[in-house]
Amino acid sequence: MGQRVGCLGGGQLGRMLGLAGLPLGLQFTFLEPLADAAAAVVGRQLLGAYDDPDLLRQLGEESDLVTFEFESVPESSASLLARSGRVFPPPRALAVGQDRLLEKQLFQSLGVETAAYAEVGSDAELKQAAQVGFPAILKTRRLGYDGHGQRLVQDASQLGDAWGELDRAPSILERVVTFQRELSILSVRGASGEAAAYPPVENHHQEGILRLTLAPAPGLTPELREKAATIASSIVEELDYVGVLAVELFQVEGRLLANEIAPRVHNSGHWTMDGAVCSQFENHLRAGLGWPLGGTEAKGYTAMLNLLGEDPDPSELLTIPGAHIHLYGKEPRPRRKLGHLNIVGDDPNQVTAQLRAAAQVLRVRLPVSLDPDDIWR
Amino acid sequence: MGQRVGCLGGGQLGRMLGLAGLPLGLQFTFLEPLADAAAAVVGRQLLGAYDDPDLLRQLGEESDLVTFEFESVPESSASLLARSGRVFPPPRALAVGQDRLLEKQLFQSLGVETAAYAEVGSDAELKQAAQVGFPAILKTRRLGYDGHGQRLVQDASQLGDAWGELDRAPSILERVVTFQRELSILSVRGASGEAAAYPPVENHHQEGILRLTLAPAPGLTPELREKAATIASSIVEELDYVGVLAVELFQVEGRLLANEIAPRVHNSGHWTMDGAVCSQFENHLRAGLGWPLGGTEAKGYTAMLNLLGEDPDPSELLTIPGAHIHLYGKEPRPRRKLGHLNIVGDDPNQVTAQLRAAAQVLRVRLPVSLDPDDIWR
Repeated sequence: MGQRVGCLGGGQLGRMLGLAGLPLGLQFTFLEPLADAAAAVVGRQLLGAYDDPDLLRQLGEESDLVTFEFESVPESSASLLARSGRVFPPPRALAVGQDRLLEKQLFQSLGVETAAYAEVGSDAELKQAAQVGFPAILKTRRLGYDGHGQRLVQDASQLGDAWGELDRAPSILERVVTFQRELSILSVRGASGEAAAYPPVENHHQEGILRLTLAPAPGLTPELREKAATIASSIVEELDYVGVLAVELFQVEGRLLANEIAPRVHNSGHWTMDGAVCSQFENHLRAGLGWPLGGTEAKGYTAMLNLLGEDPDPSELLTIPGAHIHLYGKEPRPRRKLGHLNIVGDDPNQVTAQLRAAAQVLRVRLPVSLDPDDIWR
Repeated sequence: MGQRVGCLGGGQLGRMLGLAGLPLGLQFTFLEPLADAAAAVVGRQLLGAYDDPDLLRQLGEESDLVTFEFESVPESSASLLARSGRVFPPPRALAVGQDRLLEKQLFQSLGVETAAYAEVGSDAELKQAAQVGFPAILKTRRLGYDGHGQRLVQDASQLGDAWGELDRAPSILERVVTFQRELSILSVRGASGEAAAYPPVENHHQEGILRLTLAPAPGLTPELREKAATIASSIVEELDYVGVLAVELFQVEGRLLANEIAPRVHNSGHWTMDGAVCSQFENHLRAGLGWPLGGTEAKGYTAMLNLLGEDPDPSELLTIPGAHIHLYGKEPRPRRKLGHLNIVGDDPNQVTAQLRAAAQVLRVRLPVSLDPDDIWR
């Protein structure tokens, strides 16, 4: 029988890892505190907390290799798992992904541009941080989620209150960047050092939640495409990384500023399930297993639309040619990610038209003008 | 939550139905007597016989719709399930698919050519059947499996013994056809009557087991492509069919002779998982649910190679670009279908070269010359 993969976390990312891994002959176990986890249909669920030492030990013992569905893995859990077997991505990547300061320092050490920033760990540092300029955002170093742990600061006089509201947690102050658009690039690196990157994509958020990804990023110049690939490859090399890693980037004219990394499969990579030769989920597993990586080339044009808050009616959505539905089996709740839709085609105008049709069916407002000239040019 | 699909049979076809259906928000229950069924990882397994009335009732009650993984469904089971809810494909299609005589009569009634054949139910009929010509094959009407229930007959003098060896079961005598190649075509028809067909494919067997499918069928003339589609559509219309149905065809010069139908997803359609817009598994479910059908167009060229008898080493196979592995999680056993490999690409020469490479990795002999001119012309 095939190898056994353990996964810390049993949400939709775990579910999609399982769906990609079962055809490869893999078996899955998920450690997840939520009953009826999205991933439980494709593997065994260990029901309990992410830091339950007994369950962690069990997960490690029952798995030939272990991976993570999210980056905020308790350090104690990661090291417990690391003792019991092959773990990927490497602990250092988790540590960097959990800490905005380490993240920024990593970018800096690799010569990757970022927004101006400063460390805030004391009143003295807070005062000095003002030199990054305003408006700025004060962010706790440890990961917040969807905008938690952040305060917008308009000038130096607001700094003290803002930090107080963040309970004076270790933070960074980051100058607000006026960017043309947000891009991301997914890189995958195998245990042997073999690495590849998917084409950079363009992301659009609504209320702090990813709504739409356009793949490949429309109208990206070859220079910027190359630049994004170089950034991604320098990061995975530096971290001696194994698996899929996402880098979020701001495009500011001809420059790319790195915003953050996610050491895992990523929502902005869901388009790869239908729009790339090999999906991010399969490639993450192939990397961890030491197997050859799959092709990262785009097949045509893909628009990935997140399905939020309520279950769509597939019978309506599937009237749209080229539409592929991916539901996570989760209970509907406002703004909750319940699934996504990939619309794939060879003709960008057609994909654009189909995206417009999907928005109508779903009665959602798209975060981007649907003038075909504005999308894939 | 999504709809609940019941499936009689929990082998690899059920498993791949599940893998296709989970992203559509469906939930699966499989009735299957074999413990650790291939499909059990993507749904709940009811462990028991296909004709266990209690389990059949349970399957029916717990499912919003029910389908079948094989055509030799006991009639009593089909009618029990039909009472409890929506069942597809329709019982008549199962009846026809189980009986070589009804099958031949269906073809005939639709003006679809077949090999010369005659019914054999009595000594008088046996004697008269000789008029179909020799060599011929005596086949029991009820479905055999992989060549069981068949006897090759060289002349009229052998007929009596051959029928005796088949226990004088109701049979047909069928003239042996010298054909250029075997083709198959998969059709899908929805509850609303919407129908579509995948492009016809070319099949190669070894020792009675499908080994290789080339999709689309190399060098098929537009006339024959059209003819195959007409045959498929006339059959699904006549049967008021719902779901995917396969038709096996013999090509004899410019003619197509229908050999048999399979009222279910089919091994010769596995290429659609990576090589068509929408897979046969997803389309079978969409048809049963009354949802719009997905695209049946081929994306480039696909070679589907069955993995028989022993588990391959994915780390070797995946060095081949464009290779997609689908393993079924079954225990290895000689000649057993354990998985399949889809090799997809835009360039037929490249796909041919990759197929050659795969055969080398697997150390198998291919049932077809690998001269690129012989494959996709």
